[in-house]
Amino acid sequence: MNFKTYLESTGKKAVELAKAAEKVTKETGASIVVAPQFVDIARIAKAVEIPVFAQHVDPIKPGSYTGHVLAEAIKEAGAVGTLINHSERQLKLSEIEAIISLCRDKDLVSCVCANNPSVSASVAAMRPDIVSFEPPELIGTGVAVSKAQPEVVTNTVKLVRRVNADITILCGAGISQSEDVATSLKLGTSGVLVASGIVKAKDPYIILRAFADATKL
Amino acid sequence: MNFKTYLESTGKKAVELAKAAEKVTKETGASIVVAPQFVDIARIAKAVEIPVFAQHVDPIKPGSYTGHVLAEAIKEAGAVGTLINHSERQLKLSEIEAIISLCRDKDLVSCVCANNPSVSASVAAMRPDIVSFEPPELIGTGVAVSKAQPEVVTNTVKLVRRVNADITILCGAGISQSEDVATSLKLGTSGVLVASGIVKAKDPYIILRAFADATKL
Amino acid sequence: MNFKTYLESTGKKAVELAKAAEKVTKETGASIVVAPQFVDIARIAKAVEIPVFAQHVDPIKPGSYTGHVLAEAIKEAGAVGTLINHSERQLKLSEIEAIISLCRDKDLVSCVCANNPSVSASVAAMRPDIVSFEPPELIGTGVAVSKAQPEVVTNTVKLVRRVNADITILCGAGISQSEDVATSLKLGTSGVLVASGIVKAKDPYIILRAFADATKL
Amino acid sequence: MNFKTYLESTGKKAVELAKAAEKVTKETGASIVVAPQFVDIARIAKAVEIPVFAQHVDPIKPGSYTGHVLAEAIKEAGAVGTLINHSERQLKLSEIEAIISLCRDKDLVSCVCANNPSVSASVAAMRPDIVSFEPPELIGTGVAVSKAQPEVVTNTVKLVRRVNADITILCGAGISQSEDVATSLKLGTSGVLVASGIVKAKDPYIILRAFADATKL
Repeated sequence: MNFKTYLESTGKKAVELAKAAEKVTKETGASIVVAPQFVDIARIAKAVEIPVFAQHVDPIKPGSYTGHVLAEAIKEAGAVGTLINHSERQLKLSEIEAIISLCRDKDLVSCVCANNPSVSASVAAMRPDIVSFEPPELIGTGVAVSKAQPEVVTNTVKLVRRVNADITILCGAGISQSEDVATSLKLGTSGVLVASGIVKAKDPYIILRAFADATKL
Repeated sequence: MNFKTYLESTGKKAVELAKAAEKVTKETGASIVVAPQFVDIARIAKAVEIPVFAQHVDPIKPGSYTGHVLAEAIKEAGAVGTLINHSERQLKLSEIEAIISLCRDKDLVSCVCANNPSVSASVAAMRPDIVSFEPPELIGTGVAVSKAQPEVVTNTVKLVRRVNADITILCGAGISQSEDVATSLKLGTSGVLVASGIVKAKDPYIILRAFADATKL
Repeated sequence: MNFKTYLESTGKKAVELAKAAEKVTKETGASIVVAPQFVDIARIAKAVEIPVFAQHVDPIKPGSYTGHVLAEAIKEAGAVGTLINHSERQLKLSEIEAIISLCRDKDLVSCVCANNPSVSASVAAMRPDIVSFEPPELIGTGVAVSKAQPEVVTNTVKLVRRVNADITILCGAGISQSEDVATSLKLGTSGVLVASGIVKAKDPYIILRAFADATKL
Repeated sequence: MNFKTYLESTGKKAVELAKAAEKVTKETGASIVVAPQFVDIARIAKAVEIPVFAQHVDPIKPGSYTGHVLAEAIKEAGAVGTLINHSERQLKLSEIEAIISLCRDKDLVSCVCANNPSVSASVAAMRPDIVSFEPPELIGTGVAVSKAQPEVVTNTVKLVRRVNADITILCGAGISQSEDVATSLKLGTSGVLVASGIVKAKDPYIILRAFADATKL
């Protein structure tokens, strides 16, 4: 679950949201990862036992960089992985590869986002732990990628598998119904990337629980 | 004091460094601001009473942005201001102006960095709270701007004052001796921006104390 | 007149458009500058006698840069100036200043774009030859800045003059009627920046001629 | 041959250099492509019969873009292909994919640069016509990649072939001796990307001729 920079997922509310996710994990056994803003990583990592990811990390080593995000810093704050190249935080190709390599060194899980099947295959060739396919035009629309473009998801899985047999594949964009989660899994992915569908919900717990239950279908 | 992304100023060590700065402030009355990495802002703001700045903030409002830094988030974490456009995190002109405007709205202190006299004047025309002149070629060298380019500092102060009578002027780059601090003030600035000179010191407290004392000369 | 990257202003059609502008200049004495794409600069500069600008130039000196645009190269191709920091090609503050300085050295006219009054003042403080105020939200709309935001134009002129008495001030965005040109001049500017209003017109010559005539009112 | 932005390969001198390359092609049958600056494409394409590439093209369609480089424009100027993502003009991953796709549509040859083996494989997965492996730390040094890192070239060829059987593989960086060309071919590449080694030579024709002869060994 990507917290992005919504007010509903900033500061204290971010902690509450993470606790709701933890509750669902305990109840259902579903694997839920939360990706809050940088400043909220430390207190969320203290407050919950489910995995915390950063939303981004910079391809740098410790040194003279201002306003950058150090892998060592998010790790000390309690993050166990990071999103990379989200469509709202796109990176140069060489930077993506450098961050994947950095994550490998620092034992952080790397989850790289891709906007189409060809880019997904390209990402898979760099061997991160996870590739997440998200067509940007569907992000935040409530129209799920699994419903609007099922054949594109299938094609992505096929192209990705051709270059990388082991990588975990997620999809996202517009996931707002529990059936979207179930469909995504049937299309060959191992999970979904969600944000506004849960963060902006009246009761995030209820939606999260429904999503978690849908993974069991 | 800009903590940058040195290991010596990350996580627990960042808290210790901030406490050393707080101690010097209490002993000398000198005004010291610490600018740690995003993930460390919250714990440092809790641990010390001196002002905490972010090293950067993004020109965005709450919403669908991944891996960005929200003004509301750094404020809730305890920051009271932010560096903007550091030479290691340069921004587009329109972004700088948008962040200054955002800081005004959110009651955050805006400190914009500039790499030469002309850029400093340009920054001053946008009316942030503080402009900090730092020639990038001297950053991290230990050769102080106040010693290497005193006439450039003086010229910067003159050009800045021509367009903005009220702005606070700092200078930085290579500040490593207490006499560099004293000289900077004599050249017409109100303070200095420091990083490696203190962060990488064997005993940061001793250097900070000497710098604080130098402001009284 | 900014040719942007419309098909109607690319290649041979770009030459025809420049010739139409030259014709209007000869007929009316109005000062018209054309800013075609990089690849078209040379043939247009050969084909017409009116001034040709680049749409952008990079802050670099001759050397090991790939895919960059060298001031020396646009000059040898026949350009006499360049747009800088157009809202569709925004630059870091230090880059803008470096390009202004480069233009001064190479005897090229520098025309820097700005998206609001505060940014316009900031640009003026760096002393380019021309500042062009264009609110991005009106670009390409046909709703002229001079009609929609006359007080913002006036305020821009005031703020710019406060920091720079000599600079030439243009405005742009949505200029599509000859009365928009006349109004812009009355609001204190010395001319307008136009693009789609002319490039996409059925007969660009007629619109250009009407615009030129409007400058005499 | 990448002309970059050297004065020795700008304007009239760029035309002379292209003619030297054409002469070598006629004498030896070697396939030489020249990649001049944007403003020089048209006159070089008129002056010589060997293929002309752009050094970069933007991932845009005709429209409201200022200071951008349109595929249609470089094509009308006479280019038959383009470099993409050179280490001196790096792009976001989604941009690279969009440009490859654009080149396919416009019948332009796409040559994507990559800085290491993993990035080369990633590029190959997007199926451009050519991938060119160039370790940035060797560019312009005169220390050839084929001599300094032969096993890295071999490894790149292996990783690239695993995801793409058809792609043309080049290598570059530091190529300055004709034996570097011969070695590069023996390591499994189909050619080399060169720049300063020829552009900055006293007599580029002599070096080019030696390089062309080395491809026959």
